[in-house]
Amino acid sequence: MDTPTMRPVDVVIAAARGFLGDRLSTNATVREQHSHGEDSSPPTLPDAVAFVETTEEVSRLLALCNRHGVPVVPFGAGTSLEGHVNPVRQGISLDLSRMTAILEVHAEDMDCLVEPGVTRQQLNDHLRDQGLFFPVDPGSHCTLGGMVATRASGTNAVRYGTMRENVLGLEVVLADGRVIETGGRTRKAANGYDLTRLFIGSEGTLGVVTRVRLRLHGIPEAMSSAVVQFETLEGAVRSTIEVMQMGIPVARIELLDDDMMEAAIAYSKLEHLQPRTTLFLEFHGTEAGVQEQAATVEAITAGHGGAGFRWATDPSERAKLWKARHDSYWAGVAWKPGHKALTTDVCVPISRLAEAILGAKSDAKELGHATCIVGHVGDGNFHQMVLYDPSVPGALERAWDMDKRIVARGLDLGGTCSGEHGIGLGKREFLEREHGPEALAVMRSLKATLDPNGILNPGKMFRN
Amino acid sequence: MDTPTMRPVDVVIAAARGFLGDRLSTNATVREQHSHGEDSSPPTLPDAVAFVETTEEVSRLLALCNRHGVPVVPFGAGTSLEGHVNPVRQGISLDLSRMTAILEVHAEDMDCLVEPGVTRQQLNDHLRDQGLFFPVDPGSHCTLGGMVATRASGTNAVRYGTMRENVLGLEVVLADGRVIETGGRTRKAANGYDLTRLFIGSEGTLGVVTRVRLRLHGIPEAMSSAVVQFETLEGAVRSTIEVMQMGIPVARIELLDDDMMEAAIAYSKLEHLQPRTTLFLEFHGTEAGVQEQAATVEAITAGHGGAGFRWATDPSERAKLWKARHDSYWAGVAWKPGHKALTTDVCVPISRLAEAILGAKSDAKELGHATCIVGHVGDGNFHQMVLYDPSVPGALERAWDMDKRIVARGLDLGGTCSGEHGIGLGKREFLEREHGPEALAVMRSLKATLDPNGILNPGKMFRN
Repeated sequence: MDTPTMRPVDVVIAAARGFLGDRLSTNATVREQHSHGEDSSPPTLPDAVAFVETTEEVSRLLALCNRHGVPVVPFGAGTSLEGHVNPVRQGISLDLSRMTAILEVHAEDMDCLVEPGVTRQQLNDHLRDQGLFFPVDPGSHCTLGGMVATRASGTNAVRYGTMRENVLGLEVVLADGRVIETGGRTRKAANGYDLTRLFIGSEGTLGVVTRVRLRLHGIPEAMSSAVVQFETLEGAVRSTIEVMQMGIPVARIELLDDDMMEAAIAYSKLEHLQPRTTLFLEFHGTEAGVQEQAATVEAITAGHGGAGFRWATDPSERAKLWKARHDSYWAGVAWKPGHKALTTDVCVPISRLAEAILGAKSDAKELGHATCIVGHVGDGNFHQMVLYDPSVPGALERAWDMDKRIVARGLDLGGTCSGEHGIGLGKREFLEREHGPEALAVMRSLKATLDPNGILNPGKMFRN
Repeated sequence: MDTPTMRPVDVVIAAARGFLGDRLSTNATVREQHSHGEDSSPPTLPDAVAFVETTEEVSRLLALCNRHGVPVVPFGAGTSLEGHVNPVRQGISLDLSRMTAILEVHAEDMDCLVEPGVTRQQLNDHLRDQGLFFPVDPGSHCTLGGMVATRASGTNAVRYGTMRENVLGLEVVLADGRVIETGGRTRKAANGYDLTRLFIGSEGTLGVVTRVRLRLHGIPEAMSSAVVQFETLEGAVRSTIEVMQMGIPVARIELLDDDMMEAAIAYSKLEHLQPRTTLFLEFHGTEAGVQEQAATVEAITAGHGGAGFRWATDPSERAKLWKARHDSYWAGVAWKPGHKALTTDVCVPISRLAEAILGAKSDAKELGHATCIVGHVGDGNFHQMVLYDPSVPGALERAWDMDKRIVARGLDLGGTCSGEHGIGLGKREFLEREHGPEALAVMRSLKATLDPNGILNPGKMFRN
């Protein structure tokens, strides 16, 4: 088969058919589905899509691609917002979404072992009867493998941490097909280099994750929510700082700005609320504990112009509130009919958050963009949705320019270009500015060590 | 100066004198002080000791040593238990203990930036007035740089995490003298490879830490302690599992076995307690919260044969209890006059902890060792002090053999060879067994990439 006229990728496709059969697809529709995520970058078609089902298949495929210098782009649920799954240099899209086995649950140790295509919903449905849950919640139907790759977090991270804190170990296939296990089942260890965290957030550029060992948490005895509205954005941020300093273990503390509230009130029928800066809170603990937390937070917010503190223990009212928060992306899009949204992802030290958000709002005004903001404010992370009309030439480019301004200000304030969405394609230009040339050189040297032929998700994270 | 007859290390010493002056010492007493830590491995004299005061000095010295292939062994407070600071291949002992500046404290963001020679006591004394503290507490007078290097933890880790979770970023000098900054000031980030965690726990083999950015916590409104004694070891462990599953945010949960209690009662005058398996607990929170936690834990322990639950809110009673826990090493040594202690450090999934400890106690009995056990039981980590008489030939070797048995059993139970003390010299033989040859090869390739001449703490972590 291997004739001099065949392209390397065709050699790989022919050979991979030998062990994947029909699960190696060159169908146009399948390739199109694997040409992009939920990002705003241009799509690129992969040459083929491999629907793998076992670690061994991943290993054989990677060894093959490595031998022939063919790019491999891991693909999970396709929910990336930063172009991680776009095969910009074509090659093979490695679809792990069929690896959905929950292999082990250790209730006493509160850990589990899953395949990378398991979604957090699937896992939490499976765990519920045992009184356990996995807390990291990016708010999309993503896979746990993808969440490892992007170091995902979300609304619960303020209390439970991100993927960085909630992954105990991994099985990883390296570029040349070798399979390693990292980490282990213990809650802590001082046992050599932290390979687990080297792969978490490496965006598919250092290896392919084929198993994930997660730390679980007990479902709290009581959960309650609250909502409180502010005269000023600073009041909401100052309240958050005080809540964090007092060590109140809020499970969620989310900010919606006045624009986002206007959109959410219309979309999610929250007529009892005003279009003003608002905090949505969730408390986990004992019955008495959540009551005490809510009372303390109410007192703190009242001191910073918070009004109409509304505490909800009723599950249906809680569910409505958090559904509105989760639907804020759709509310934002519906707010300006015919528009699409570019979602930004800056994270700053919390003391600089008001400045970062007010600056972003003032930029939007100056540049004539409609935007709405939601923030994981306890972590200093916010997303400004920049709404643009895709039928207007240059509108997307103008939205990107707005994003660059927001990121630049975030970096000036001691922040990072990405709180949780990752670098992918969209943030590559900021990586050197954020870390400096020497640290970037170290990252590149690690990439060269683990993927000497540059086959793993090439073109991502680094600009070349 | 650089004549063909000079040894490379003499060239380095002569050149380093040029910028360190008297702070480059070849004094015999100084070298002896830097020949070992608090470990049980044979000491080795370094050729010289460099008392550095700035990052630039570290950078110049490393560049020099790298050029001449001279080993560099970072040294902080010398409290390592695994031989990390022993210069087994001689060269330069790099003493960072004079770099004691607390450079920044950001109370609103709850972070700070310190030099590596700052001890946790110094930092906590400095922070107290601002209502903040740094929780990681290995129970020795160690430096924060050393704690980074060994991924330290201790009694508070069950609630606040280890160094892995409490370091935001680092300044690191690489083997060739380049200086990089890793991480940043935000609580989370998805911004490239996690270099911070690559250096945490790397035991001075990948770079020298010259600045540490730490995450701080608010001093809780209320703190209280409790002590409860058990009929059986299993009862104490089962109580702990239940406390963890219920998500009770205990700040400390420490186990002392019957032997350790016998030693502690004598040493710390705890006459009101019995020589039986005991849990020491600490609760942090609001006044009402700690009361609720204590009541719940009392009920749980009562269900597993716990008796005499004694709750202490009085600061002096709390202090006496925790001093006794912190002094347990000395209590153990005093228990068998003339003996020394080899301290083991296994960590297992908590469901296997009773088995691990009972097995270790049975080994001790079989082999005729006097031992006492303390455990960070919420994390599945325990230390068995193997007491030996140094005047008896072969006694230390027999203690090491006992350690190896305990570690082997820990690994068989799904655990790790080191919960918090690190690999150093003592645990090198277990690293491959724990991670497998492929993962160890990846660790070695990272070492070769970042330290191609092998000058950084050679002979540690890996056997060659």
